[in-house]
Amino acid sequence: MILLFTDFGVRDPYVGQMKARLAEHAPAQQVVDLLHEVPDFNPHAGAHLLAALARDFPLDSVFLAVVDPGVGTPRDAVVVLAGGRWFVGPDNGLLSVVGARHADTRVWRITWRPERQSATFHGRDLFAPIAAEIARGAFPSAKLTPVDKLAVEFDSGDLPRVIYADHYGNAWTGLRAVPQNARVSAAGQVFSHGESFGFVGKGEGFWFVNSVGLVELAVNRGSAAATFGLAVGDPVHVHLPN
Amino acid sequence: MILLFTDFGVRDPYVGQMKARLAEHAPAQQVVDLLHEVPDFNPHAGAHLLAALARDFPLDSVFLAVVDPGVGTPRDAVVVLAGGRWFVGPDNGLLSVVGARHADTRVWRITWRPERQSATFHGRDLFAPIAAEIARGAFPSAKLTPVDKLAVEFDSGDLPRVIYADHYGNAWTGLRAVPQNARVSAAGQVFSHGESFGFVGKGEGFWFVNSVGLVELAVNRGSAAATFGLAVGDPVHVHLPN
Amino acid sequence: MILLFTDFGVRDPYVGQMKARLAEHAPAQQVVDLLHEVPDFNPHAGAHLLAALARDFPLDSVFLAVVDPGVGTPRDAVVVLAGGRWFVGPDNGLLSVVGARHADTRVWRITWRPERQSATFHGRDLFAPIAAEIARGAFPSAKLTPVDKLAVEFDSGDLPRVIYADHYGNAWTGLRAVPQNARVSAAGQVFSHGESFGFVGKGEGFWFVNSVGLVELAVNRGSAAATFGLAVGDPVHVHLPN
Repeated sequence: MILLFTDFGVRDPYVGQMKARLAEHAPAQQVVDLLHEVPDFNPHAGAHLLAALARDFPLDSVFLAVVDPGVGTPRDAVVVLAGGRWFVGPDNGLLSVVGARHADTRVWRITWRPERQSATFHGRDLFAPIAAEIARGAFPSAKLTPVDKLAVEFDSGDLPRVIYADHYGNAWTGLRAVPQNARVSAAGQVFSHGESFGFVGKGEGFWFVNSVGLVELAVNRGSAAATFGLAVGDPVHVHLPN
Repeated sequence: MILLFTDFGVRDPYVGQMKARLAEHAPAQQVVDLLHEVPDFNPHAGAHLLAALARDFPLDSVFLAVVDPGVGTPRDAVVVLAGGRWFVGPDNGLLSVVGARHADTRVWRITWRPERQSATFHGRDLFAPIAAEIARGAFPSAKLTPVDKLAVEFDSGDLPRVIYADHYGNAWTGLRAVPQNARVSAAGQVFSHGESFGFVGKGEGFWFVNSVGLVELAVNRGSAAATFGLAVGDPVHVHLPN
Repeated sequence: MILLFTDFGVRDPYVGQMKARLAEHAPAQQVVDLLHEVPDFNPHAGAHLLAALARDFPLDSVFLAVVDPGVGTPRDAVVVLAGGRWFVGPDNGLLSVVGARHADTRVWRITWRPERQSATFHGRDLFAPIAAEIARGAFPSAKLTPVDKLAVEFDSGDLPRVIYADHYGNAWTGLRAVPQNARVSAAGQVFSHGESFGFVGKGEGFWFVNSVGLVELAVNRGSAAATFGLAVGDPVHVHLPN
């Protein structure tokens, strides 16, 4: 299975162009749109989202991950194997959090270049063919060079910020493993733990551990983002009981 | 064929997470995104949309229908067989209109629970595996208990309200079978019947029976929602000629 | 491979309804969403987008292209074979630019009508079944009549206007083959050439030849559309050096 993880947006032709290239190179593979609305130009938030989301998928899944504001500059292109799953994308930190969270991580630099390569669309021209080969079990050794580590590495600990706001207005944070009796604050608002939406009053805010293991700030039948002015990048604080 | 019908939105990772689960459990099945923008937290509008849309699909289609603001609370999870098509989702009314509109409807409660079940994402953890088993022809009798009826049932007659506004600004109503010489009003505006967009003047409003059999309010080359301030939930009236 | 190219939007049920019909008629074919946000009711911009995008896809690809504000009126439905790729859609100019740019173009009028045809959704009822038959190699001669040319033809030269604005705020123009030392202006702003995003300063505007060969106006890590007030339809001028 190939999972697409980008900031290409859902309404533009970029995803379709990339999928057509995947279909040429790996016609029998399932391709699933995981997320195309990673915050634009933000590999840092993307790295934490990717690390949290990837856990949910089968071993040998291939993540084609492109949040690449430096496309066309000399940043490297890489393949990462971490926790039994494959990640193909730019070496700008995007793959570094999931890489650092596994002990057995291996990294390859993509040395191959396609005959025709757009200066602005490596997702289609460079990353998609490599991801397709890996997905169909034809590891392209001749196109890769093993390297010791990524060139750009983010801190792989929890990120105490809002890293995503979904269409309901729920705000994902980069925090894991917060005790249930803690309170969490952001944008001047303090949230207590709730089990799920139906357990708090309508319009009431709460935090919960979401389906990928991250602390999420929400409002029952309302938008936490709109109600409290939460936005990607906002710092988040954890208040432990005395 | 598995049809997805949710309020998960098109830009968030929830649809992809659910599809990956479907691909694990039913890799050979076609999965089609029917609608992911059911009005948020609104099983009532969703129930009427689903009943209208479902008619268009082949017998034995499986609809994975999740509009589930009560996720995590003790509401039931159910399978409905109605008119030869399958529906899997929460027992909160969402499946009740399509159920009531067929004489041969059967209902099962889902008694199985997955080993790992998120409190907030039953679409992925509970409903998707059941829908996948039904779609590949392996009816999961051991995971279901036949019941007489749904716990929550909405009125299955026409719903005289706006139930959906599309991206053009066309407003779908929950009305069927309105005579062509009737006028329809909403938001203080009166609409006469038109056959299709090209038959009324540019910028002119009209109503027509849309491709799923519902009365729809529209403007030729414009947005009825923006022009007349139409929104989901607005009451709609039918004016028959004397 | 079937490529979908429409103004149906990404959030409405129309794409899913059309895909389900394709799955019935050509279950083994890959279907890829290329673009569903062609500017609404704008076959002119659509014609130039389609001509530019189509080059990227394999021979024998089938484009199901529907931007059809005149649906239900007597405009014709057509099949175009141009440059070894197939195009199915309304005869309103949408297919005329890609048709005129190839010397070997052939045109057929669709004379077949489905048993049940909605007045407003020929994408599902009329175009999808024809596209499906062509895609699976069963050219439906009995449903088509060869004709000499399209009824509606747009100028097939470059279109000096903004024809698309993507979610980053990058503005695509209908211009090809502008020399790198030229400057390009739109909305009162003058842009110089840049190779890619990472080569200009943060927030700086530039033009580049995008991944489908069109001149595109952009801002590094920002929105050209928002910064300069660019919108679809804006005239674009090329300033050659003396």
